[in-house]
Amino acid sequence: MVGQMKSFLFLFVFLVLTKTVISARKPSKSQPKPCKNFVLYYHDIMFGVDDVQNATSAAVTNPPGLGNFKFGKLVIFDDPMTIDKNFQSEPVARAQGFYFYDMKNDYNAWFAYTLVFNSTQHKGTLNIMGADLMMVQSRDLSVVGGTGDFFMSRGIVTFETDTFEGAKYFRVKMDIKLYECY
Amino acid sequence: MVGQMKSFLFLFVFLVLTKTVISARKPSKSQPKPCKNFVLYYHDIMFGVDDVQNATSAAVTNPPGLGNFKFGKLVIFDDPMTIDKNFQSEPVARAQGFYFYDMKNDYNAWFAYTLVFNSTQHKGTLNIMGADLMMVQSRDLSVVGGTGDFFMSRGIVTFETDTFEGAKYFRVKMDIKLYECY
Amino acid sequence: MVGQMKSFLFLFVFLVLTKTVISARKPSKSQPKPCKNFVLYYHDIMFGVDDVQNATSAAVTNPPGLGNFKFGKLVIFDDPMTIDKNFQSEPVARAQGFYFYDMKNDYNAWFAYTLVFNSTQHKGTLNIMGADLMMVQSRDLSVVGGTGDFFMSRGIVTFETDTFEGAKYFRVKMDIKLYECY
Repeated sequence: MVGQMKSFLFLFVFLVLTKTVISARKPSKSQPKPCKNFVLYYHDIMFGVDDVQNATSAAVTNPPGLGNFKFGKLVIFDDPMTIDKNFQSEPVARAQGFYFYDMKNDYNAWFAYTLVFNSTQHKGTLNIMGADLMMVQSRDLSVVGGTGDFFMSRGIVTFETDTFEGAKYFRVKMDIKLYECY
Repeated sequence: MVGQMKSFLFLFVFLVLTKTVISARKPSKSQPKPCKNFVLYYHDIMFGVDDVQNATSAAVTNPPGLGNFKFGKLVIFDDPMTIDKNFQSEPVARAQGFYFYDMKNDYNAWFAYTLVFNSTQHKGTLNIMGADLMMVQSRDLSVVGGTGDFFMSRGIVTFETDTFEGAKYFRVKMDIKLYECY
Repeated sequence: MVGQMKSFLFLFVFLVLTKTVISARKPSKSQPKPCKNFVLYYHDIMFGVDDVQNATSAAVTNPPGLGNFKFGKLVIFDDPMTIDKNFQSEPVARAQGFYFYDMKNDYNAWFAYTLVFNSTQHKGTLNIMGADLMMVQSRDLSVVGGTGDFFMSRGIVTFETDTFEGAKYFRVKMDIKLYECY
């Protein structure tokens, strides 16, 4: 009886310690699986002069002339997020925030924005910031917080430029992977 | 004796597993209780031309004309935070950062700022960002980090507009709830 | 035998609870040791008119006149990060982001930026934001996220102004301490 209990205890120690390790913050060297994962498309239609109806973003500073790649141009946006590539699809979220160009010898940008969800499926926000290294095919930004359905979330957003039609319109595929969910 | 120990073990398994689950990052579907919670009032007095003495913020860009709701106006601030609604009360913190308007058919804003505490009670900072959906009565932003007394904190700040006196002065009630404290 | 097991159980309870507490998010009142720690120097060379070759940053707004300490001047940068104080040393990372001055009666700033690592040693980014209280000798900002080799990192960056040569060049020692690593 006591022997049985000993082996039970041993097994128990093993199980508890395993459980404890899993519950710790540093699971392993390999990236864990996301607890939530979805892909959305970001559509940016730059304001010109007379297209208030269609425009979703506007530049608020003029590049001061450091190189020829719009260094210093800061754009504020309220852009639709859709589940497919059609910018006229019903948006499932809005992306509200800003980006600016920040390299003198190539196109490169920096983003900070909030994904605002307000549908029957999702209510809440995700807050995102990071470098948009445009010359790299796929680049990662940080999800630094969330509210509502995304309460206290953290994760990664992977950007891929889907199309770039001059200064007027561009579309970015955003793969949102949350690794901390409540 | 062994029977007693068995039931002790059973209770123990239960207690340890409960404890382990509590210590994990995903407690439950319901939001956990904050480890710290306090309410402060944010006072923003916009700089005009000759009121350097009173002003606590200033616009640094001109709205480019996308709609009639100040889209693209970016404001930098060093605003007092008080525990009551009187902006002349002794501030318990400063809010340093910026906001901008970002919607073409209504007032809507986006904030990123730091609460700077430097009193005998609290020393340290809280870093905050998120959408200020002004048409919603109560809206959540993210506390994405903290330093000093708020070392490594995370949480939620709930905004409620307390008063809006034209372009010159507005006051926001900020309910700060920290869910990760060290 | 049963007595021995009792004391074993007692020890075990102690060990498991200790372990559980360590694995929880709130280790103790004292700050834990960083899981990664390194020091880099940030070099900012402000764009004038004809120095595109050397400049690494540029102002994109004009201070609106709230005080005499550049309140409202917003600077976008793509600055080299080096391991020593020589700005001509081979950079180990780029700092891409912005800062602005935000105090009317002294120099004070606010930063948000990304450290971009792209070497054989490190690939990935760290996202940082917070107040740069320039009158304080050593001040803390938040690492709010990371990608690549710094996947999901969080921590603190301690700024110390190393040199300030007028409006043209300044150097900041940045002590990067990560407390959450994967």
